[in-house]
Amino acid sequence: MVKKTAEEFSKDQKEISVSEFFEKNKHLLGFDNPTKSLLMAVKEAVDNSLDACEEAGILPDLTVKIKNTKEDLFEVSVQDNGPGIVKEQMPRVFGKLLYGSKFHRLKMSRGQQGIGISSVTLFSQLTTGEPTKVWSKIESQKKTFYLELHLNTMKNEPEIIKQEEVEAPGLGASGIKVVMALHGRYRKTVEDYLKQTSVSNPYAKITFTAPDGTKTIFPRSLNELPKPPKEMKPHPYGVEFGILKRMLSNTSSRSIVSFFTNEFSSVGAQTAKEICKVAKITEEKKPSELVGADLERILKALQTVKVQRPPLDCLSPIGAGELEKSLKKEYPNAEFITTITREPSVYRGFPFLIEVGIIYGFQEEQSENTKSNKKQRAEEEEDTEKSETIELMRFANRVPLMYQQSACGLTESVKQVDWRRYNLDQRSGNLPSGPMKLIVHICSVWVPFVSESKEAVASYPEIIKETKLAIQDAARKLSSYLAGKRRAGEQKRRMQIFDRYAPEVAHALSILAKTDVKPVEKKLKELVASRIHIKEEFEEENGQPDTNEVKEVKPSVQPKQETKQTDLKKQNK
Amino acid sequence: MVKKTAEEFSKDQKEISVSEFFEKNKHLLGFDNPTKSLLMAVKEAVDNSLDACEEAGILPDLTVKIKNTKEDLFEVSVQDNGPGIVKEQMPRVFGKLLYGSKFHRLKMSRGQQGIGISSVTLFSQLTTGEPTKVWSKIESQKKTFYLELHLNTMKNEPEIIKQEEVEAPGLGASGIKVVMALHGRYRKTVEDYLKQTSVSNPYAKITFTAPDGTKTIFPRSLNELPKPPKEMKPHPYGVEFGILKRMLSNTSSRSIVSFFTNEFSSVGAQTAKEICKVAKITEEKKPSELVGADLERILKALQTVKVQRPPLDCLSPIGAGELEKSLKKEYPNAEFITTITREPSVYRGFPFLIEVGIIYGFQEEQSENTKSNKKQRAEEEEDTEKSETIELMRFANRVPLMYQQSACGLTESVKQVDWRRYNLDQRSGNLPSGPMKLIVHICSVWVPFVSESKEAVASYPEIIKETKLAIQDAARKLSSYLAGKRRAGEQKRRMQIFDRYAPEVAHALSILAKTDVKPVEKKLKELVASRIHIKEEFEEENGQPDTNEVKEVKPSVQPKQETKQTDLKKQNK
Repeated sequence: MVKKTAEEFSKDQKEISVSEFFEKNKHLLGFDNPTKSLLMAVKEAVDNSLDACEEAGILPDLTVKIKNTKEDLFEVSVQDNGPGIVKEQMPRVFGKLLYGSKFHRLKMSRGQQGIGISSVTLFSQLTTGEPTKVWSKIESQKKTFYLELHLNTMKNEPEIIKQEEVEAPGLGASGIKVVMALHGRYRKTVEDYLKQTSVSNPYAKITFTAPDGTKTIFPRSLNELPKPPKEMKPHPYGVEFGILKRMLSNTSSRSIVSFFTNEFSSVGAQTAKEICKVAKITEEKKPSELVGADLERILKALQTVKVQRPPLDCLSPIGAGELEKSLKKEYPNAEFITTITREPSVYRGFPFLIEVGIIYGFQEEQSENTKSNKKQRAEEEEDTEKSETIELMRFANRVPLMYQQSACGLTESVKQVDWRRYNLDQRSGNLPSGPMKLIVHICSVWVPFVSESKEAVASYPEIIKETKLAIQDAARKLSSYLAGKRRAGEQKRRMQIFDRYAPEVAHALSILAKTDVKPVEKKLKELVASRIHIKEEFEEENGQPDTNEVKEVKPSVQPKQETKQTDLKKQNK
Repeated sequence: MVKKTAEEFSKDQKEISVSEFFEKNKHLLGFDNPTKSLLMAVKEAVDNSLDACEEAGILPDLTVKIKNTKEDLFEVSVQDNGPGIVKEQMPRVFGKLLYGSKFHRLKMSRGQQGIGISSVTLFSQLTTGEPTKVWSKIESQKKTFYLELHLNTMKNEPEIIKQEEVEAPGLGASGIKVVMALHGRYRKTVEDYLKQTSVSNPYAKITFTAPDGTKTIFPRSLNELPKPPKEMKPHPYGVEFGILKRMLSNTSSRSIVSFFTNEFSSVGAQTAKEICKVAKITEEKKPSELVGADLERILKALQTVKVQRPPLDCLSPIGAGELEKSLKKEYPNAEFITTITREPSVYRGFPFLIEVGIIYGFQEEQSENTKSNKKQRAEEEEDTEKSETIELMRFANRVPLMYQQSACGLTESVKQVDWRRYNLDQRSGNLPSGPMKLIVHICSVWVPFVSESKEAVASYPEIIKETKLAIQDAARKLSSYLAGKRRAGEQKRRMQIFDRYAPEVAHALSILAKTDVKPVEKKLKELVASRIHIKEEFEEENGQPDTNEVKEVKPSVQPKQETKQTDLKKQNK
């Protein structure tokens, strides 16, 4: 064998463009099968539109259309009423990976990587050679800007095919319309995604036209936007050596104390001074003068000095009340609904928050539908999850997560809960079984996804712990409902027996006591009635009203968290 | 609420460097907990060393040292006897993400992304601020080149701290030594990884010094390198629109026929002409003249024209024989060992091949050890996999995959096999249970990993299918061994009964037949002996020898695949 030398090796060394990397690893972006690919195109556009509308303070009104142009070729069109994009930015927003406004800030949003929509341009040209087409209308301009572009994978830069100003009255005062052609396969997953999006974004109106022409409207159940989440500065608890070093060399603060108060969230002058003291650093020292050993002492000091937790206004949960309304709208026949919004917590200095919803007992028709959808997705993923288990719906920053369920930290949390304690069947280490849907939502200024396709949340221990606590809170409420239901059933059976034998017994007693039969029977009936009374009291406690009206129970066990619970009488039974 | 305009949005749009992206998403690179981080540092360096040695035709001799410098701070040092790296390339090899020699070619190797070792530099400076230190000796230079470097995350470029020529006699004729400091946690996982590496690379010698000073040597069991895998050109079956378009615009071929024969593997002139004919393209047409519609017709033609499958010499499996030897060395007390190497198959035009090994019945001590390791890893990953299931060892291009078992396509394949058909317990949808270790190895010119940390293989349907077939082949052999073992046990019990009652029965018969007892007893004993004979025949068939020597059985059912099977008598029972 001829020996290859170091010099020969060196000739092959080459830079790899990030677009080339993802073109070859397209499954990392979620383009690993035709069904997912089509969903990704819809999802990236819809997520961007919702982010833009919300941030601009506009109630979202989206129109999604999918056309099957031929065989496995689809055209996806998504239009919004957002603020639009200025023409100078359009090429890179749609035609360059790792470009965007959301990466370099700590603010809760759907997008965070600067990859999503450009990855669709990449996949679209890879499978069809077609350019991405974008119309953008901004308020300050009369005309709409039209752009057709490719992504140059060798350079990771946009390649403009055509650009011009046009009349496009359909876009109204402002908005974006994007049209992309790609290889795909149409399945109900797209509709499921939009339906779930509607649940977690009740203030958005989405009009969807499927390839067969069927039009579905997901209306608003809420006419105002949620309180917008605030941008935050890094929290000192999550800071790492390299980040601190970079912040110190980039800061314009003159002293280390002002550096801490200016560049971090939750650090006041007093805390900054305390950090300096523990780290044995003079308060007036310039940030640029610090060396490695100083940084190490600062990082150590941060482990002992008490710093306020991150600001909570940077998170915008759906809210237990709104989530419950959304669920009731979508599952009007559910027997029992409860929702929980936990207080925020922190991982790696990033605040996050968990919300959970439980829907118990729904009509078979829906359930069958769900099963077939689950089965279909399971087949696509070659998943072994059995269909008798509950349906788990995962969300991250209001975005439904449709794939990679088994790789997700939220799923892991559900499996780790001992559901038998809450009156549900569960095979050890699996999801529980039963006629139940479970919603788990994580909000964070930075959601750690297990891949660029953002389908599953990484299993950070703090996230697992909080998610389990949230689920347990909700499960306790379900459990007491189920226990009550069982008790009420037993009571009722016993009363029916009394009722049936009352005349017989009254008759026998009247003979024995040698009295008239009427008063005895009356007394017996009163006894039975008092039992019924007990049952009614129970129903009141557990919120089982006789109309279909919703009854809200005050939060009981957990005073600090918002909680909603509804028990709907099955109307159609 | 103040409305944010498109112009205001545009100010925040910014490019994101790939290093910034991965610094924030360090869990994508495998740095999501301290134990994994330390393993990643060892793994990336070892994988690179093995690749370099093999490609240079040098029998690998590696030295791995881990020091616990203070608290959670570790120093990882890996030295090899490879060809070394020329000094001009060193900064970018160790200090730039997406840079390397392996991405732009189709050749089986451990590295393929140009991310691995630079990601350790990134993580090291993030957690400790320390630079990566590299010594490189190449054969043509007298002195060793020493380099200390950081990675500038904003630019994704190396930042040289120090470079000089030094005397470093320890490196011999050529080699690399790399030293990296990082936050971590030491667990047996590192040793497990090296042990498994030794199994899949029997020609490598690895000397390992743990933080407590314990030195472990994993010796060679083989003194020559495997046949080196050949580089291949793309196979037309996997080509996509965008790739074909780029190849056409980059080619120096003058005609479409020569384009096909020059730029693709497995395409001869005849096939190229056939493709042109079906696609209705003149053979002499210049590649640059083709338009979108031509490309579409070519892609369609490729679905009907029969193209030879990709060349097989581009894959270098461990081999059933070598794998078996490795397993015997590592598990000398195993009761039964079988190995399978399948014929290569293709996904997306990339050839790949599956190997499987089964080790059945081993000593409790080992098993306990395994269990605690498994348990530990499960805890680190918050995994719900139960410990009574078999131990699965996954490999990709000879690299042991230590994490993300449940997200891996290879695991999925094991779960999809119906193990009850092969006499093993299995809960539906889980791994089987029993005293068994299962090895699954995928070799490919491009392994599709589910993340940049290369811990799990994506579930491409072709890969799942081939892996299941390979497992079933091996499981059949195990099953017939287990069935034989059970039958032999039953026979033996029956014979013992005959044997025990022979004198009694002979006595009674002799009275009834009024003959002498001796001949009757002799005939009865002969009968029993013939039963023993049957048993011995069975044992011979199934290769149960009376010494500890290995008996190799010829491949029987699958003529096309290499297969080894050993049944080792338990020596220490």
